[in-house]
Amino acid sequence: MASREQTVRIDGARFWSTIEKSGQIGPGKAGGLRRLALSDADKEMRDLFITWCTEAGCTVTVDRLGSIFARRPGREDHLPPVLIGSHLDTQVAGGKYDGIVDVLAGLEVVRTLNDRRIDTRRPLEVVCWTNEEGARFPPPMVASGAFAGVYDVDWVLGLRDDDGATFGGELERIGYNGKEAVGGRAIDAYFELHIEQGPLLDHEAIPVGVVVGGYAARGMHVDIHGETAHAGPTPMDKRKNALIGAAMLAVAVNDIGWRYHATEGKATVPRLVAWPNKAGILSEYAQLTCDVRHADPVKADAMLAEIHTAMADCARRANVEMRVAATWTFGNERFDPGCIRLIKESADRLGVRWREILSQAGHDAYYVSKVAPTAMVFTPCRDGISHNEAEHAELGYTAPGVDVLLHAALTRANR
Amino acid sequence: MASREQTVRIDGARFWSTIEKSGQIGPGKAGGLRRLALSDADKEMRDLFITWCTEAGCTVTVDRLGSIFARRPGREDHLPPVLIGSHLDTQVAGGKYDGIVDVLAGLEVVRTLNDRRIDTRRPLEVVCWTNEEGARFPPPMVASGAFAGVYDVDWVLGLRDDDGATFGGELERIGYNGKEAVGGRAIDAYFELHIEQGPLLDHEAIPVGVVVGGYAARGMHVDIHGETAHAGPTPMDKRKNALIGAAMLAVAVNDIGWRYHATEGKATVPRLVAWPNKAGILSEYAQLTCDVRHADPVKADAMLAEIHTAMADCARRANVEMRVAATWTFGNERFDPGCIRLIKESADRLGVRWREILSQAGHDAYYVSKVAPTAMVFTPCRDGISHNEAEHAELGYTAPGVDVLLHAALTRANR
Repeated sequence: MASREQTVRIDGARFWSTIEKSGQIGPGKAGGLRRLALSDADKEMRDLFITWCTEAGCTVTVDRLGSIFARRPGREDHLPPVLIGSHLDTQVAGGKYDGIVDVLAGLEVVRTLNDRRIDTRRPLEVVCWTNEEGARFPPPMVASGAFAGVYDVDWVLGLRDDDGATFGGELERIGYNGKEAVGGRAIDAYFELHIEQGPLLDHEAIPVGVVVGGYAARGMHVDIHGETAHAGPTPMDKRKNALIGAAMLAVAVNDIGWRYHATEGKATVPRLVAWPNKAGILSEYAQLTCDVRHADPVKADAMLAEIHTAMADCARRANVEMRVAATWTFGNERFDPGCIRLIKESADRLGVRWREILSQAGHDAYYVSKVAPTAMVFTPCRDGISHNEAEHAELGYTAPGVDVLLHAALTRANR
Repeated sequence: MASREQTVRIDGARFWSTIEKSGQIGPGKAGGLRRLALSDADKEMRDLFITWCTEAGCTVTVDRLGSIFARRPGREDHLPPVLIGSHLDTQVAGGKYDGIVDVLAGLEVVRTLNDRRIDTRRPLEVVCWTNEEGARFPPPMVASGAFAGVYDVDWVLGLRDDDGATFGGELERIGYNGKEAVGGRAIDAYFELHIEQGPLLDHEAIPVGVVVGGYAARGMHVDIHGETAHAGPTPMDKRKNALIGAAMLAVAVNDIGWRYHATEGKATVPRLVAWPNKAGILSEYAQLTCDVRHADPVKADAMLAEIHTAMADCARRANVEMRVAATWTFGNERFDPGCIRLIKESADRLGVRWREILSQAGHDAYYVSKVAPTAMVFTPCRDGISHNEAEHAELGYTAPGVDVLLHAALTRANR
């Protein structure tokens, strides 16, 4: 590596100014962001991101699922690119950093290389994946999943939000129904930087976590079918209240999480809807979304099996029918040893302290790792709080990780 | 009673044709009705009802809560009127008879008296109460409740549906924000006919139930406050998932219902909403609606006390806060002995078989009984199915009860 490359660092103030501008688009009610995928706010942020990338000399393409690729050419531009990416959408009451920090870190890497007139052998691409959160269109990470061949593109386009709008319709509405094929091309490597969404780095005051793998996660939607009836005269033993079946299953899933709590397992019910869900009447339909996560995939599978057992028990007790409507799984992936080593070496060279870490949340990197050598860099967030408007990061927490990302990507692109 | 009055009977075919016309306004998805209060379909039905009443010579007034009063004058028109009433709104997946049968029975009574040129000493009024179901604007029976002084009119006007629309705004939108004061005037008597919404009359093949009282019902909304957090890394013991608290309470309420099942008690959770209620995040807020019903008010109070105990337990277990956001109670009322006797005598005179019965559902009559001598007539519905699009009644089930209603109201109005 040339000495000019060895000394390169990002422009922290410029980088953080992009985070702050992003933090004004789609404000939440409590200081964070509400920038749901394919909303007007998401469009506004995408437009700004593309303006920044174009000004930085990148060529921008958009694929059929709305994922954005901003490409900085390489000296040998026919070679597969090195990707840096994450997402710009947020939870309904989300933070200003989750996902966003990396996409804008990728932009800052491009700007820094431009400043120093550093070119790379391979092209670099900064990626914004659509709907990573899955908050509006569950499940999460469908665009990177389709990129990796895990999901069918047309299935993703047909996903509906709670108001009945489709993924494809909303893509078209905001003008991000791109023409590029989803995936199917060679990628040299994929790097994703992300706030940890856990407390380890913050509490240990270590600026970089080198992610060596993820918690195994298994999720599903469960459909529950009962029968409407009058809340007054219908005797308890004639009831088929789908809402009660769903509530029983929610409690059972939570109990399963507690049974694996000692080994840091989690089981979550983030969502429950019922219909008609009105005063005076028993609900005929409900849908519950749940997932389990464990560092040990065998334990995650055992937790999932316990949910299936609970489903049968709750269906019987509530006198309703339950069936699995959709499933997803992620986090079994192990990242690429070469990319992981490159991150550690870059950190060591820069004098940045690091530790190995497991990811407990889902990330686009999980899916991309199926089609490209992949690694992740975690940076601290205060007390590990995330998916909450109180999520907090700052430049001092984040810049060392972005410098590591810069050096790892630069080295890989010049390989 | 003059012999011409003793032989008077309704015109069954004409009566049933009005039920059938009503059955086409606001069709449900499964053959019943979806005619939520203050919807476009509700407006269409109200307009038709007023047209029919006006053609029958009635003077129509609308009060500030949209309740409609169609008045047939009496010979001594300054005397307090005899009211016949119920509601024209339905559940979101409701039947064609619940409430509707009585309002249109009142119209048929007026038409029949007109045909026979029978005048009455006191005026007669046919009443349509707004939002009896409470399906769109819980709690139920707010308009008759305000008429009886139980609810404040402005509080009712401020109720919101699940989409945020207000009761007052929707009244104005459909043009039923009337000018008449709500209640506050003398009523001689109130009669309400209703399908039983239980199986006794149908299974015993008895055409008339003389309602001697109601199941005591106590209902409430419970607000549950937790905290949003990421579904992945947040350990079970740091979670404050409001949705889990609500699910625990739903299961506990259902269990309470089972504990009183042997004495025909019921406990119901018709509604549960959570926010954000999205994949990947724990909910910070939930609201649960529940009620208990028992023939014995002491037992109903005991059931309610058990819910309060369960609330404290569930709040502790789910690490959330719970508080009661609103309460309602009905069904303690006992109907007027004079009006009850009048119904029994009318049935005996007409040769219609009857039995005494308790109401398990809520009815506007409960509230009106606080300000006027009141009684109710039940007519059969098939297998007691109600609040379901499969709700079924027919002319043969219903006409004997309407004749009894006609004679009771006529006798009372000539008193």
